[in-house]
Amino acid sequence: MYFASDNSSGVCPEIMEALQRAAGGYATAYGEDGETGGLQERFGALFGREVRIFPVITGTAANSLALSALTEPWGQILCHQGSHVYNDECGAPEFFSGGARVVPLPGAGGKIDPEALRRAAAHTGHGVHTSPARAMTITQATESGTVYTADEIARLTAIAHDHSLGTHLDGARFANAVASLGCAPAEITWKAGIDVMSFGATKNGALGAEAVVFFDPERAADFERRRMRGGHLVSKMRYLSVQLHAYLDDDLWLRNARNANRMAARLHQGLTGIDGVTLLGPAEANEVFAVLPVRMADRLREAGAQFYGDPFDDPAAAEPLEAIRLVASFCTTADDVDRFVEAGVAAAG
Amino acid sequence: MYFASDNSSGVCPEIMEALQRAAGGYATAYGEDGETGGLQERFGALFGREVRIFPVITGTAANSLALSALTEPWGQILCHQGSHVYNDECGAPEFFSGGARVVPLPGAGGKIDPEALRRAAAHTGHGVHTSPARAMTITQATESGTVYTADEIARLTAIAHDHSLGTHLDGARFANAVASLGCAPAEITWKAGIDVMSFGATKNGALGAEAVVFFDPERAADFERRRMRGGHLVSKMRYLSVQLHAYLDDDLWLRNARNANRMAARLHQGLTGIDGVTLLGPAEANEVFAVLPVRMADRLREAGAQFYGDPFDDPAAAEPLEAIRLVASFCTTADDVDRFVEAGVAAAG
Amino acid sequence: MYFASDNSSGVCPEIMEALQRAAGGYATAYGEDGETGGLQERFGALFGREVRIFPVITGTAANSLALSALTEPWGQILCHQGSHVYNDECGAPEFFSGGARVVPLPGAGGKIDPEALRRAAAHTGHGVHTSPARAMTITQATESGTVYTADEIARLTAIAHDHSLGTHLDGARFANAVASLGCAPAEITWKAGIDVMSFGATKNGALGAEAVVFFDPERAADFERRRMRGGHLVSKMRYLSVQLHAYLDDDLWLRNARNANRMAARLHQGLTGIDGVTLLGPAEANEVFAVLPVRMADRLREAGAQFYGDPFDDPAAAEPLEAIRLVASFCTTADDVDRFVEAGVAAAG
Amino acid sequence: MYFASDNSSGVCPEIMEALQRAAGGYATAYGEDGETGGLQERFGALFGREVRIFPVITGTAANSLALSALTEPWGQILCHQGSHVYNDECGAPEFFSGGARVVPLPGAGGKIDPEALRRAAAHTGHGVHTSPARAMTITQATESGTVYTADEIARLTAIAHDHSLGTHLDGARFANAVASLGCAPAEITWKAGIDVMSFGATKNGALGAEAVVFFDPERAADFERRRMRGGHLVSKMRYLSVQLHAYLDDDLWLRNARNANRMAARLHQGLTGIDGVTLLGPAEANEVFAVLPVRMADRLREAGAQFYGDPFDDPAAAEPLEAIRLVASFCTTADDVDRFVEAGVAAAG
Repeated sequence: MYFASDNSSGVCPEIMEALQRAAGGYATAYGEDGETGGLQERFGALFGREVRIFPVITGTAANSLALSALTEPWGQILCHQGSHVYNDECGAPEFFSGGARVVPLPGAGGKIDPEALRRAAAHTGHGVHTSPARAMTITQATESGTVYTADEIARLTAIAHDHSLGTHLDGARFANAVASLGCAPAEITWKAGIDVMSFGATKNGALGAEAVVFFDPERAADFERRRMRGGHLVSKMRYLSVQLHAYLDDDLWLRNARNANRMAARLHQGLTGIDGVTLLGPAEANEVFAVLPVRMADRLREAGAQFYGDPFDDPAAAEPLEAIRLVASFCTTADDVDRFVEAGVAAAG
Repeated sequence: MYFASDNSSGVCPEIMEALQRAAGGYATAYGEDGETGGLQERFGALFGREVRIFPVITGTAANSLALSALTEPWGQILCHQGSHVYNDECGAPEFFSGGARVVPLPGAGGKIDPEALRRAAAHTGHGVHTSPARAMTITQATESGTVYTADEIARLTAIAHDHSLGTHLDGARFANAVASLGCAPAEITWKAGIDVMSFGATKNGALGAEAVVFFDPERAADFERRRMRGGHLVSKMRYLSVQLHAYLDDDLWLRNARNANRMAARLHQGLTGIDGVTLLGPAEANEVFAVLPVRMADRLREAGAQFYGDPFDDPAAAEPLEAIRLVASFCTTADDVDRFVEAGVAAAG
Repeated sequence: MYFASDNSSGVCPEIMEALQRAAGGYATAYGEDGETGGLQERFGALFGREVRIFPVITGTAANSLALSALTEPWGQILCHQGSHVYNDECGAPEFFSGGARVVPLPGAGGKIDPEALRRAAAHTGHGVHTSPARAMTITQATESGTVYTADEIARLTAIAHDHSLGTHLDGARFANAVASLGCAPAEITWKAGIDVMSFGATKNGALGAEAVVFFDPERAADFERRRMRGGHLVSKMRYLSVQLHAYLDDDLWLRNARNANRMAARLHQGLTGIDGVTLLGPAEANEVFAVLPVRMADRLREAGAQFYGDPFDDPAAAEPLEAIRLVASFCTTADDVDRFVEAGVAAAG
Repeated sequence: MYFASDNSSGVCPEIMEALQRAAGGYATAYGEDGETGGLQERFGALFGREVRIFPVITGTAANSLALSALTEPWGQILCHQGSHVYNDECGAPEFFSGGARVVPLPGAGGKIDPEALRRAAAHTGHGVHTSPARAMTITQATESGTVYTADEIARLTAIAHDHSLGTHLDGARFANAVASLGCAPAEITWKAGIDVMSFGATKNGALGAEAVVFFDPERAADFERRRMRGGHLVSKMRYLSVQLHAYLDDDLWLRNARNANRMAARLHQGLTGIDGVTLLGPAEANEVFAVLPVRMADRLREAGAQFYGDPFDDPAAAEPLEAIRLVASFCTTADDVDRFVEAGVAAAG
């Protein structure tokens, strides 16, 4: 019953086998190998257009390096107030950009409110005295377990582009979003106005592999320098590329994501109606958010469940509450979910 | 006949097997797992004292993050003019330190000349107008294929500490140095005055794993923040840690390094006396440097050998020359070496 | 009728005369002169304790350099959402700190709300993943024309220090605050828990002179390096120091500020009751904020008045409104004010 | 007998009078005033072409801001090893550029050796692993008291431009160079291939005023943001601009420089032939460099002379030597010089 994070899952067998097959032999280092070279075409086919793709090892690196290509050091990066770049990267976007400001915007369900974006993008302040907005970043699937529709993304990127902002998509859980929408990857990226994205694989079965994908090749001009200077040019890069190829082979990425999404939906359904449990929003991707009594959360943990929670302040509540997050992954089983739900029912009784 | 770089070798079987064994199951992300926790004690035992160790994915990250802990943004980092930090990291030390200056020093055989170090460390310039020297970094084994003795290191660190400089050792090929000297790791690190080191595994058989090891724990106070902010806190860190454990198990790291060193020695011996080939220095670690006619280098490449070379300018030479570097690794075979030497003999003929 | 900014005023005669007297002769550059040396004691006497003071040329430099001494590059600087550091320095605090995040807090009348500060200071987020709050900065007099009492400041700094935050006071209009409160400078600075302040003179009659004053000398350890590296170590520094001495001589700074405050109060009083004019808050320092019909603002400008204004959105308003700011300075005259008020009355008629 | 630095001289009367005249009245802040606006045309006329000019307060700011417009954070700035940017700015070029590397080149008489420049500019190293050369900066007059001819500058800038490097001229003593050569300012700047320069006035009679002058307007696109973010947008900028206008009025800048140069030549001539004094190079601008016995230097100081000196190591010398620098300024008098020479003669006796 491990629902703490999809980062806590291991390596899925198909990717481990691909690494095993590629383990021996020689290949030119630093991405001058055939596996890495092949990624350009591979991702080009995936997205239905020419792209420039650069493997890196962490999502924070992918996001920060990509954003640094969209803003000068004195610019602003507009994001959702609940986003990873704002809350969980310890200043990496500021570091890689040379000091740009990350500005949090409100919005329901983890999605940037278009009107808030418009105001922030249009804010010119006092001319040269004020940091200008230069980039917008959205997260897909969001940090709230929701998924932007293609139209929602297009609406935001249109506002961004109207004000000359570059647009970035943090796709740490991109597979979950695509699996949820059943759309082509292009529909929610470049066709919806995204200039560059972070394409995640680690949370969804890879050992450690992310990619920065530029749909606007001009934005990529300095990227190799940025990546090298950040210590993110991996010497044996073929092993990142092997993971990414295996991740796309036979739609592994979508199969893994579909399992995670199904398990989250099963959790959501199972928790519905349990006395004392309030579900926060739908389970459109692989995460479920809920509020329940601390007493219940403790009982669930005693029963062996792992998940993160924060105290939830509600003056009207009869007992202390906790807001919890449950994350399913490629390897979550129906049995895991059912045992958790049973333990929840028991705890509520 | 692949002698281009030890980075071009693959993953050694023992490490691949360890990864395979650890592939499944759940573990807390971001280094809060048991494998990573165990590294503190493991490296403590290796070095015979308490250390603080932080896994990262690249040598450039290890070097740059470690150096950033030794200098303010306005300081100087003194290094050898042939070092990786000066020539091959595209400004990463400058980036991570927030703008420190990397100052190249001369010295024979890839080793910093003590007198040059003394002058640079003592240079105070015009008070607040001049960047103060704050750190020294040496490379072990050096970029010239030589190995510092413990005494040579102690001499340099004594000068550095006399002037309040922190000391760093770039150990991308540390195993080769230890194997070459047959000493305890402590002898050429903290006992010789090193405050922090980059401990490499990638070039010597790992898939991708390096570690920053602090012998002066106070220097490590901010390291976790620095690593996170640099995008170098790997989420599934257990897979870096598993590699490092396997690397140390049964002295794998030294066995791998000994093979690489033996093969370099065999290359050196085999090339000795071939007409037209001038060997540059001894082969104390796993690299051989030589000058030979371009014509010969071309013949060797045609025969299937891979290696890097640069034009070598010698006005007195009868024909164009090339300076080449040959690197052996954990998987270089005697047969590789012997065929290369034979091809060299044939090319000279 | 020049109410656009106190920065638009000139040099007051006493300071110009002091510069004239000091114009000739030789003095060691870069602050090693007697005038600059004497500032330590001078400001020590002003504040009733040992201080370390560093002249600089702009308020943005003073603020940014001071704040950079209070936070690591990965920290957060908490400020009011209407503050100069947040809105008007084009990322200078981020630049000088190496990428720290400037976080805006709410609060009525330009003053940070203590509860908002407490929450932001206490927010630890996800450990190493989250930028920690490291510094708080307040503005005195505020950007809303109000003045913090000593108790209000002490309350904020107590919260800040409870969470190990350094505390900074942006005193671009410090003289106006001291004149308004009639207190000793110490009462609203170090005795109220301020660690370092920006002491402004430029807006209040200097040609160009600000000072960073450290009440916690340990915080000043690196300041000279920071100032030099920022290009803010002025070579003929004696001319900044001469201004600062003249500024304090015979309480010139307070006399100038008192005039500005009186003129703002006269403006406030004169505008009170004019039909269509809504005054926003009291005039505790040298600024008056008001909302009035665009039509009236235009008439005032036609009559020769200079001031800044922004459209003010009020759906209930019968006609378009404008929010204006009127700033008085050391050289504002009662005649200026009275003519403005008369023009306002005429425009309202 | 004050020869320590031209920075130690005061404000020349013409500039002080101009400041006095401009002291009162109102003007829009931050450079939106008429004096500042007029500088564009004024400097355009001076240089015989359209320029973009930005006043700043220090030479370090001028140099660092200008250089930051010529290189990405991962680039190299090539300079003379004796230059101010390399030795006397405490990392300011690194800071403003976001971490670029400042690379010292050799060359006689304070001038970059063209062949050394060619090698450094052409050095591509290991592709993305190596910081690329992006900018060259020269100093005119040099730090060795010499003056580049127009041809010498053109030769260096041709090499720089051949390798796509931007070119900068540090003109802290530009007036001395122009006065020395008797040429038009254009001849040794844009006509000789300079893209941007630091135009100094402070050392030559101003209270504090420098200017960054772009001959390539495209390079200036971000300059206002850079200047603001560096805290170098002075609020009462009219007082910098007034100084610059006065500096150019009636060729004051050249008259001041001519006096300084004449006095340096007089010093040089006077010291020629004094027993024990070895003059280092000619006095082409306003500086004289010499080696003399420590004993003599001490005697000169006892006689009231002020100048800087460093121990000069010469194993063949009969007694300890000192290398000294003597700087003349706009206010140095023939009497100062003659008394110094007399004291020297006496000390040698």
